[in-house]
Amino acid sequence: MGHAESEVLDVERIREDFPILQREFGGEQVVYLDNAATTQTPEPVVETIADYYRTTNANVHRGLHQLSQEASVAYEDAHDRVAEFIGASGEREEIVFTKNTTESENLVAYAWGLNELGPEDEVVLTEMEHHASLVTWQQIAKKTGATCRYIRVDEDGTLDMDHAREIITDDTAMVSVVHVSNTLGTVNPVSELADIAHDHDSYIFVDGAQSVPNRPVDVEAIDADFLAFSGHKMAGPTGIGVLYGKKHILEEMEPYLYGGEMIKKVTFEDASWNDLPWKFEAGTPVIAQGIALAEACDYLDDIGMERIQRHEEQLAQYTLEQLREEGDVETYGPSVGTERGGLVSFNLDSVHAHDLSSILNDSAVAIRAGDHCTQPLHDKMGVPASARASFYIYNTREEVDKLVSAIDDARQLFA
Amino acid sequence: MGHAESEVLDVERIREDFPILQREFGGEQVVYLDNAATTQTPEPVVETIADYYRTTNANVHRGLHQLSQEASVAYEDAHDRVAEFIGASGEREEIVFTKNTTESENLVAYAWGLNELGPEDEVVLTEMEHHASLVTWQQIAKKTGATCRYIRVDEDGTLDMDHAREIITDDTAMVSVVHVSNTLGTVNPVSELADIAHDHDSYIFVDGAQSVPNRPVDVEAIDADFLAFSGHKMAGPTGIGVLYGKKHILEEMEPYLYGGEMIKKVTFEDASWNDLPWKFEAGTPVIAQGIALAEACDYLDDIGMERIQRHEEQLAQYTLEQLREEGDVETYGPSVGTERGGLVSFNLDSVHAHDLSSILNDSAVAIRAGDHCTQPLHDKMGVPASARASFYIYNTREEVDKLVSAIDDARQLFA
Repeated sequence: MGHAESEVLDVERIREDFPILQREFGGEQVVYLDNAATTQTPEPVVETIADYYRTTNANVHRGLHQLSQEASVAYEDAHDRVAEFIGASGEREEIVFTKNTTESENLVAYAWGLNELGPEDEVVLTEMEHHASLVTWQQIAKKTGATCRYIRVDEDGTLDMDHAREIITDDTAMVSVVHVSNTLGTVNPVSELADIAHDHDSYIFVDGAQSVPNRPVDVEAIDADFLAFSGHKMAGPTGIGVLYGKKHILEEMEPYLYGGEMIKKVTFEDASWNDLPWKFEAGTPVIAQGIALAEACDYLDDIGMERIQRHEEQLAQYTLEQLREEGDVETYGPSVGTERGGLVSFNLDSVHAHDLSSILNDSAVAIRAGDHCTQPLHDKMGVPASARASFYIYNTREEVDKLVSAIDDARQLFA
Repeated sequence: MGHAESEVLDVERIREDFPILQREFGGEQVVYLDNAATTQTPEPVVETIADYYRTTNANVHRGLHQLSQEASVAYEDAHDRVAEFIGASGEREEIVFTKNTTESENLVAYAWGLNELGPEDEVVLTEMEHHASLVTWQQIAKKTGATCRYIRVDEDGTLDMDHAREIITDDTAMVSVVHVSNTLGTVNPVSELADIAHDHDSYIFVDGAQSVPNRPVDVEAIDADFLAFSGHKMAGPTGIGVLYGKKHILEEMEPYLYGGEMIKKVTFEDASWNDLPWKFEAGTPVIAQGIALAEACDYLDDIGMERIQRHEEQLAQYTLEQLREEGDVETYGPSVGTERGGLVSFNLDSVHAHDLSSILNDSAVAIRAGDHCTQPLHDKMGVPASARASFYIYNTREEVDKLVSAIDDARQLFA
């Protein structure tokens, strides 16, 4: 710590771009701490969407008229911009636009897993996987006869790497691992896991939904074979996700959705496939959303991803310190802010997380309560649900103080 | 005919909602006749999107805080609004939001087809199917051993219904048919085809991409088991499609994408599924897009779907008459405007459709040239491509005159 947050980000300036943060509920200005679910959308991104419809809207790829050409250039360039954001040197050919992280996971599970997995294969997950990864690979394993194995999560909320080295074997065909846990906040050693996976000729799929929006991610430094994330968690619109894949793997992979745009030649008998990445983008793609996501990348890079990471770490650390003062709050995951993403999950003794969330809402403090799409992890933690405060570029320590004060109100109410 | 178009729609008033129609290329105001690819987006829909991000943005279903509650209500109600638009009495339970029509087709092909089809089954398509349907069922048939059969298209561009009755048999498990052909403009007798399919205990999937935006469609009057369409072809945003399915069929169907939102209970071994329609909407859904689509339904209903159909029919009829005057233009599909949707595909003797489209673009006339995602149909028509002018609520006869005049320029250039 030691840095006032103003040294990291000019939060007051940033907040001007988010009119929604001025909303009031019951006379209180909203304290939006549900960023791991969805971040808010800055004016430049909202204006990019509106401008698209007001000036450029047309279907892409196929049109020879001016509007279609303009929309096509903007949409295709957006792939390059996203590639640059995560350090993918293969540019647009390695970037597939989907509708969300979940679809990116399913794309690989269907297009690669359903065709390549068999009863002799194992898929290695972690106990802290999001349902998007966990349920998807479970079901594909059921269809193919493959087996799912889970890397243990230790008491401190980190992966048991000895266990990882034990269960990632030559039988492993895929390691699917969350980069930053959306429940524990744990930052997993994905680069090390990639090395282990590759030593056994396995692919590694990294769920970057909680890392790409919040810290610098260089997909080639990690050496991930696949990486997935969502626009709506990184200042972009709903309705767009990204699948990064290494070019040679995407080239070999079967298609996933079939239809227009993804074909080369079609007869009444069969079809051949288009070039990357269009092979994986069947039908009219998420045009406005892709262009807006590129604008979100510009917006975040202008602020600086290192600064965003530091800002969130400081807020997480401050929150951990405040929550632990009273002794009746259990927090989950690493105990140090710099070892976690910008979120803190917790429970207040004897108050169900849902009740806590409702009470906080009376003070206009917006957090998430539930299983955060990690039911098996919550079973292991021994709780049905947890409360979660998650931060982004516009959050302040003053807002954490309001959270703590609202928790204190709940404490009094249930005392 | 006999009606001036002003008797059908107040086009001048409508055009005020579409600032993009004021764009000029080379000093000429754009004549946008590529609506079968994508329609333009009226201000009320653009403002709904921007307002969503500025006032209501939050993740849905899971949140107890005020923003999430507001977003959830708006998103869930949008399903009911779309159900009402197509006459689905099952309301939200029969309406799944996807990313486009293509995904809606693939959803049924994967979730139903891949699990239910076998070597003894036949899927009946038509020779005028869009690649979204044709390629999808071909590939699912390849994976399952099923056979695809095609209802013949007659010289006049209509379906050979005797052939339909011949090839739809007790072996037929699915009839997938386009409601209005995006190439020929043909309006297919989907209700009659539904009766034939049901007589043989087959399902019928109706591709409504070119019908739902342009004419009143009552899914229960048709008795379709499934109906698919896209937001961006009906004054809505990109990134959203709809799958209607009869409730009892959707209930029995396996899920398609796996992940958050679509589950009830998850363990490290297995999972159970959420209620309709959320079972089919894994991950963070297309929230802003769904809310905007509901606004587009309001916008179109305010104008009146019967009027929209009549307006488009008149423009199609007028275009057919104008194009045929010179004798060197071949048009495809039914020869009467009231027997087709609001689009006309054609070729000018000895000028490739792509060249024609480029020349028209010099006069700011935006049409589509290509195979319109119906390559096998074009093979049958004996041409590699065609030019297509397609109409919507803001088009005028004056614009058709500009199209005809620009074609005349091309005629001179290639004379």
